[in-house]
Amino acid sequence: MRTLIKNGMIVTAVDEFIGDVLIDGEKIVAVGERLDSIADHTIDAQGKYVLPGGVDQHVHYSFEFKGERVRGFETSNAAVAGGTTTVVEFVNQEQGKGMADTIFDMDKNEVARQAMADYSYHAVVCDPVDTTFEEIADLPSKGISTVKLFMAYKGMAFHSDDEALYKALRAAKEAGVTVMVHCENADVIDFLQKKLISEGKTDPYYHAESRPAMVELEATQRVINLAAMAEAPVYIVHVTAEDVMKSIRNAKNEGLPVYGETCVQYLMLDESDLSKPDFEGAKYVLSPALRTKADQNALWKAVGNGWLNAISTDHCGFDWASQKHMGVDDFTNIPNGAPGVENRLGILWTYGVNTGKISRQRFVDLFATTPAKNMGLDHCKGHIGVGMDADIVLYDPNESSIISNENSLHGVDYSTFEGYKQEGKVDKVFLRGKLMVDDEEFIGEKGDGKFIHGEPFALCFENTKEAIGLNQSRVELPG
Amino acid sequence: MRTLIKNGMIVTAVDEFIGDVLIDGEKIVAVGERLDSIADHTIDAQGKYVLPGGVDQHVHYSFEFKGERVRGFETSNAAVAGGTTTVVEFVNQEQGKGMADTIFDMDKNEVARQAMADYSYHAVVCDPVDTTFEEIADLPSKGISTVKLFMAYKGMAFHSDDEALYKALRAAKEAGVTVMVHCENADVIDFLQKKLISEGKTDPYYHAESRPAMVELEATQRVINLAAMAEAPVYIVHVTAEDVMKSIRNAKNEGLPVYGETCVQYLMLDESDLSKPDFEGAKYVLSPALRTKADQNALWKAVGNGWLNAISTDHCGFDWASQKHMGVDDFTNIPNGAPGVENRLGILWTYGVNTGKISRQRFVDLFATTPAKNMGLDHCKGHIGVGMDADIVLYDPNESSIISNENSLHGVDYSTFEGYKQEGKVDKVFLRGKLMVDDEEFIGEKGDGKFIHGEPFALCFENTKEAIGLNQSRVELPG
Amino acid sequence: MRTLIKNGMIVTAVDEFIGDVLIDGEKIVAVGERLDSIADHTIDAQGKYVLPGGVDQHVHYSFEFKGERVRGFETSNAAVAGGTTTVVEFVNQEQGKGMADTIFDMDKNEVARQAMADYSYHAVVCDPVDTTFEEIADLPSKGISTVKLFMAYKGMAFHSDDEALYKALRAAKEAGVTVMVHCENADVIDFLQKKLISEGKTDPYYHAESRPAMVELEATQRVINLAAMAEAPVYIVHVTAEDVMKSIRNAKNEGLPVYGETCVQYLMLDESDLSKPDFEGAKYVLSPALRTKADQNALWKAVGNGWLNAISTDHCGFDWASQKHMGVDDFTNIPNGAPGVENRLGILWTYGVNTGKISRQRFVDLFATTPAKNMGLDHCKGHIGVGMDADIVLYDPNESSIISNENSLHGVDYSTFEGYKQEGKVDKVFLRGKLMVDDEEFIGEKGDGKFIHGEPFALCFENTKEAIGLNQSRVELPG
Amino acid sequence: MRTLIKNGMIVTAVDEFIGDVLIDGEKIVAVGERLDSIADHTIDAQGKYVLPGGVDQHVHYSFEFKGERVRGFETSNAAVAGGTTTVVEFVNQEQGKGMADTIFDMDKNEVARQAMADYSYHAVVCDPVDTTFEEIADLPSKGISTVKLFMAYKGMAFHSDDEALYKALRAAKEAGVTVMVHCENADVIDFLQKKLISEGKTDPYYHAESRPAMVELEATQRVINLAAMAEAPVYIVHVTAEDVMKSIRNAKNEGLPVYGETCVQYLMLDESDLSKPDFEGAKYVLSPALRTKADQNALWKAVGNGWLNAISTDHCGFDWASQKHMGVDDFTNIPNGAPGVENRLGILWTYGVNTGKISRQRFVDLFATTPAKNMGLDHCKGHIGVGMDADIVLYDPNESSIISNENSLHGVDYSTFEGYKQEGKVDKVFLRGKLMVDDEEFIGEKGDGKFIHGEPFALCFENTKEAIGLNQSRVELPG
Repeated sequence: MRTLIKNGMIVTAVDEFIGDVLIDGEKIVAVGERLDSIADHTIDAQGKYVLPGGVDQHVHYSFEFKGERVRGFETSNAAVAGGTTTVVEFVNQEQGKGMADTIFDMDKNEVARQAMADYSYHAVVCDPVDTTFEEIADLPSKGISTVKLFMAYKGMAFHSDDEALYKALRAAKEAGVTVMVHCENADVIDFLQKKLISEGKTDPYYHAESRPAMVELEATQRVINLAAMAEAPVYIVHVTAEDVMKSIRNAKNEGLPVYGETCVQYLMLDESDLSKPDFEGAKYVLSPALRTKADQNALWKAVGNGWLNAISTDHCGFDWASQKHMGVDDFTNIPNGAPGVENRLGILWTYGVNTGKISRQRFVDLFATTPAKNMGLDHCKGHIGVGMDADIVLYDPNESSIISNENSLHGVDYSTFEGYKQEGKVDKVFLRGKLMVDDEEFIGEKGDGKFIHGEPFALCFENTKEAIGLNQSRVELPG
Repeated sequence: MRTLIKNGMIVTAVDEFIGDVLIDGEKIVAVGERLDSIADHTIDAQGKYVLPGGVDQHVHYSFEFKGERVRGFETSNAAVAGGTTTVVEFVNQEQGKGMADTIFDMDKNEVARQAMADYSYHAVVCDPVDTTFEEIADLPSKGISTVKLFMAYKGMAFHSDDEALYKALRAAKEAGVTVMVHCENADVIDFLQKKLISEGKTDPYYHAESRPAMVELEATQRVINLAAMAEAPVYIVHVTAEDVMKSIRNAKNEGLPVYGETCVQYLMLDESDLSKPDFEGAKYVLSPALRTKADQNALWKAVGNGWLNAISTDHCGFDWASQKHMGVDDFTNIPNGAPGVENRLGILWTYGVNTGKISRQRFVDLFATTPAKNMGLDHCKGHIGVGMDADIVLYDPNESSIISNENSLHGVDYSTFEGYKQEGKVDKVFLRGKLMVDDEEFIGEKGDGKFIHGEPFALCFENTKEAIGLNQSRVELPG
Repeated sequence: MRTLIKNGMIVTAVDEFIGDVLIDGEKIVAVGERLDSIADHTIDAQGKYVLPGGVDQHVHYSFEFKGERVRGFETSNAAVAGGTTTVVEFVNQEQGKGMADTIFDMDKNEVARQAMADYSYHAVVCDPVDTTFEEIADLPSKGISTVKLFMAYKGMAFHSDDEALYKALRAAKEAGVTVMVHCENADVIDFLQKKLISEGKTDPYYHAESRPAMVELEATQRVINLAAMAEAPVYIVHVTAEDVMKSIRNAKNEGLPVYGETCVQYLMLDESDLSKPDFEGAKYVLSPALRTKADQNALWKAVGNGWLNAISTDHCGFDWASQKHMGVDDFTNIPNGAPGVENRLGILWTYGVNTGKISRQRFVDLFATTPAKNMGLDHCKGHIGVGMDADIVLYDPNESSIISNENSLHGVDYSTFEGYKQEGKVDKVFLRGKLMVDDEEFIGEKGDGKFIHGEPFALCFENTKEAIGLNQSRVELPG
Repeated sequence: MRTLIKNGMIVTAVDEFIGDVLIDGEKIVAVGERLDSIADHTIDAQGKYVLPGGVDQHVHYSFEFKGERVRGFETSNAAVAGGTTTVVEFVNQEQGKGMADTIFDMDKNEVARQAMADYSYHAVVCDPVDTTFEEIADLPSKGISTVKLFMAYKGMAFHSDDEALYKALRAAKEAGVTVMVHCENADVIDFLQKKLISEGKTDPYYHAESRPAMVELEATQRVINLAAMAEAPVYIVHVTAEDVMKSIRNAKNEGLPVYGETCVQYLMLDESDLSKPDFEGAKYVLSPALRTKADQNALWKAVGNGWLNAISTDHCGFDWASQKHMGVDDFTNIPNGAPGVENRLGILWTYGVNTGKISRQRFVDLFATTPAKNMGLDHCKGHIGVGMDADIVLYDPNESSIISNENSLHGVDYSTFEGYKQEGKVDKVFLRGKLMVDDEEFIGEKGDGKFIHGEPFALCFENTKEAIGLNQSRVELPG
């Protein structure tokens, strides 16, 4: 069955043109003009943008914070409804258990049955014993090509010290695995948290005071140095501040394979949100903390110039009433994180593309194409191109709405973008050729999503590969 | 007539896949798999790379140096034979005559009849009177969207001082015209030339001593400052040295719309070539001068990372025996420039792609896609995409040869790449759908090339446009 | 006759202590405690600071601007009354005449008879012929060890282009002469002046708009590059802006012998002064123009950290009523420059030392010690040390006053510091042991000042000398 | 009793002149010419340099490494014989005991009876409990104004983590205490040591491989960030590498009160010394490790320009035969450290001053004046000035010798400068007016040295004080 999406404005990271996309089964088999004759049926996309389905390389569907667990893959329809067809989930290693075993036990027991978006996994180092670092070598064969470590969160199981970081970087480099790091100095945060609480400063606002931008800067510079010593690539997640971004850019300018992403919330929200009354501020408690308007501007410039190469969400579905309130007397007990996967496209389009901060080409690159490369998923994801999975969004620029949690599928009781405008609407979404969203309504089913293998050293586009001595070419030309 | 190029490895700046390109007349109308059913006839590209025809944004087919003139468009078949289907020619304004008049008189009298590649023009400011700067506003309507000034060459007609530079930058900014600058400090070069000649140092080697990298660095920093004062974008041509590249990168990091290219020769040749005996060194007298191996390495890194965004040739067809020898007793009389347009693809593929310095995606970007954007030609050039001109190269990676001037079409008596290896061969070249090269043989005709309009502010991809307050979007979506 | 200045707080660039200074004739012969027994008579300095007489390395007593000439050495008592006992005067070379001849003709005819402060000379290159650059080699033997060039002032005799700059730098380096440069891009200023005047923007305020900080930055970076090419030291006069200061600091960090001063006015006044009504703004027309508060802060940090090594005045005694009014209809005709030599000590003490921005040690260094070194005058000037000239200021910190032009000796009808507070008063001043100021009253005579030989390569303290391959040591130890 | 040192070349950080120094008891009371008439007796210094006694701010007379203890204050005559009259000793806090108690117990029991140089103390944080950080506030009242923490040496008592560092910085800032830090990443060193030993790489040479310059760079950048977060000054000890120095310089350029020293060995020795055969390499096992020639050059430039402000020795008197051999089978067991206090003057004079790398003024500054300021000892130490302690060295430049351990007083069986030339000899040394060395022979006695109070925030010369909001002035002028 060959389906033709006709006459839309097809946008890729490098061009845009009015034309048709031909889908055969799960794959894109052609793009061109007037391809009706080779299609079995057609869908009219006139007046709409035809975008690749988004890749959100940073979501949490299994994260726990002091006993509270986020909403899981049963809410992944929210991603798809928002134009994101692939998510990459962080799985915290269980103590005494291998990382892959932790992941695939969860996959079998839960994710495979519930996922409504395609997905891949990051392994989070939580048990820094020798066997954990040895296991890194085996991960790529199982389709896991990224590991993550947290420098923040002193005293929690997923906190890592320099020894663990350095060992992971050394092992990962050999294996072609990319290390992703949450960069904040745990000791300083711990000191400041205790000091603030002891002074009776318990409101959500003090979350920001307890983890200023410099704790992120320090940790980022440290891990860049550790990676340089290990001669390994490193990926800095959720960059929030101008100085942190500059550290990454400087490292790149020195030839080091250092990369970073930012998230929608750091482009849009700021520390003033944390001071909203009546514990509303708790909705914005996420880590690293929200920063200033000046940092927002710097981050927009960074994504516009490619100094940061992806925009993710760090999606965490904690409920405000039932979960965030755990910290009503002590901000350090508020579960860290906020939802966002559903609004990535709408917000970036409205406040990025339509304001002229980024072009549509750049948008597609940050939203889908490069995240797929970062995760080793570009063999099938992130691009409207021949041979790619038919993950396609039809975006109607002529509709607009006000974002409201009432209409959300993400399963929690608030949205950080409540009341923001969205210019355009997600009209249709295809996942591997299957229509999952029609006229804004999710019509897919649990289990429609499937696991996608991440290829090793995905992060390392050409110059990185050179830097670390790999042959640059992955695709061989047949004779 | 619909022609299908079948089963090649199609390479764009963002992806590569095995598939078909469908050409209808002069345009690409589809890319996909198994498109035979909608084609009238097919060309088998199995085992070959299918690349966009190259865009060389920096060639000289009309340049004169102390009365000696380069080979003209009658040798532009060399470009096409080498996989470059579009060239952008610098036309020195005649004294007392408008820039556009100078250009289009030449076009009518000569170029239109002889061109075998498509072409566009840069206007070179030579007569810095008020009417010249006023004329800049009218150039885009005539398809000329770039002007160039030379800071080097004291005493020659095409030399410009700071006043001319600043006036041009101010006028160009208003008009959406991009200013390109040859950056070298003319006064210091003049002093050093006179000093060296007075000391009897007349050999070609002293060309390099008379214009060290710092004269280029100084002028580059100066023009960046002048552009910043004028709030205008600026494009630095033929960057040769690490420090110069860093100046450009730093400017970009500060948010300035400053861009630069390098040339094949600065990636491949070095100052030692100038000391070849028996006046062979004169073949390598070009400006800025060849630098060191360290600079070459830095430039490879720069193109690999996008710090410089194009690789051109600064092609100048001066004959060694009949023209370069003019300076046999005084290197300052050697016509500056060397041929190269024919070897850009072969050299970059062999020494860039095949050594792992740049990926095939990056190669395509530097060779065709971004040069087309820089020049405002991306409405039809530089990319294998739907709606683009069918300028296509079939490159056979399995053949290899030794470069020799004997086989060259460029019309001069030497090649700077004589004896270099070329891995792969240009098997076929299409220019707007017409087969111009078949099995390495040029089969096109004079006059096959046509003038391509350059669009205004072509240089200014998304972030630049933001920087200078332009709306980012050029393509409007139909209702 | 041995005079003892007793019980003052003696301040040097390195220490301070309560003690006595013993003067024998024109020289300091001892510092210590309770030296009464070896003195012929004593002066009580209890409760006062004992400071070295100031060295103002940048004054104009013979400058002409469009036919208007500043007040001359007949007003140099103002310097001494303000605690400055040595001034260094810029002498513009006459066309067709040697620089030394220009200087010493003026010296004989005028200065020697009128000077009331000691003085030395800078030669200003105005006639850039070969003999001028050749003459540089002879200057040190005549006690002239600095030459100056102006990059600003297009069309005026004292404007220099890059050729002159580069030639001067090369010649000066060989001779041990330091090149000082006024850095502003003349072409851009000329363009902006004409544009502003043509738009009817003739008020003094537009002086600042016609020469923004970037014209200074551009020229500074250019001359640093030219000096680096010539392998010569260079001294940037009157640095006004943060970015300019950083250029100098960066150059130093790269090991280049690049130095700079700022002036009192750039630390204290800002561009808003230029917009004072009723042509008051003309009093503040000086070049480079006054900048912002942010620049002031950066300059204070720079002098506090030694990134700039001297604070001078660029003293120009133009009368407001009779001279500045020349430009009442066109700011470009306002003579550039303002008086200031009389207030350097008082202002720096009040707004620098007493606010904690600089220590007393640093003040002495910037006011006297390092300017003397910069000018090759440290063989006898700038320091309270054994063997130095007995140029001494007794400063009483317990008095204070409001600065008013009524009390000034500088011979013009306004002060830029009118109404500013001065904490402390200049109680007594000795010039080579002679009491010139007593209880604030000037009691010296015309002709008391004498010419002081500047030693070659004075600028080049230790690391510079190393950088340019000179032996570091000037003082030989006797056997 | 007034003693006159006559006719020497007196050198200070700011000048030099031939003259006399008058000593009355323990103090300098005058400097000048021909002061015989007020002296009781004279010492002829003709033909000699008269230098302030050195201040070595970094020595170890009580350090223990894996149970081995360095030679103590009974060998402090070596310092004096080498022209260093004041040493500052690091005292490791005993577990469960206060820092001051640890210090003054040692002082009473041992140091006061044995010291032959004046001395002061640094308190080393080893027991990071709350009371330790609270105690910092009390240290200045006891004359201790510096604390030190070690980031290196994982698993040893004196290792500190980020929490301890940050707490110490916060406490120290409030108290006016300067934090000094040994910067090396302990985790990476630990990993590399274990790896090397497991590979059988046990020779002294691997000491350098186990702690590359990047472990120092990482730790330095980290502590600069921690200090910035604590808004506290910080002093980086024993800087060894160009990049580390640049980190400190950059921090200073950003206005942070960050300072650093280097040591004689890092200017003179390099990693090749570690590969000397027959376990000779063990003599050079000190931490951080010796680096490259390029680093040496960068460090010479740094001290010449004031980017690092002191040169100390990190003197550690471990015996080669009896102590260093503990690590004959495992370099990690070699006690870290080497002697050097005796040779600081001779080596710096010969290889610094006499080669033109630093001037005599700069030498005095780095050897005595600024170290005294850094440590709060400048109220009496480090300068030949009125009111200062009469700590004076007569240095005879006309003698020269070859350094040999045979002639050493430092009490261990080797010198790292064995065979190096010393131009000049320490002819006489006065300690507070008492002649301690005569014609190279030490003639002082145990107990001649006394404890000198360090004043709080000594480090913070003017700009630092401003940066941290302190009034800049310490010395009040009497009425």
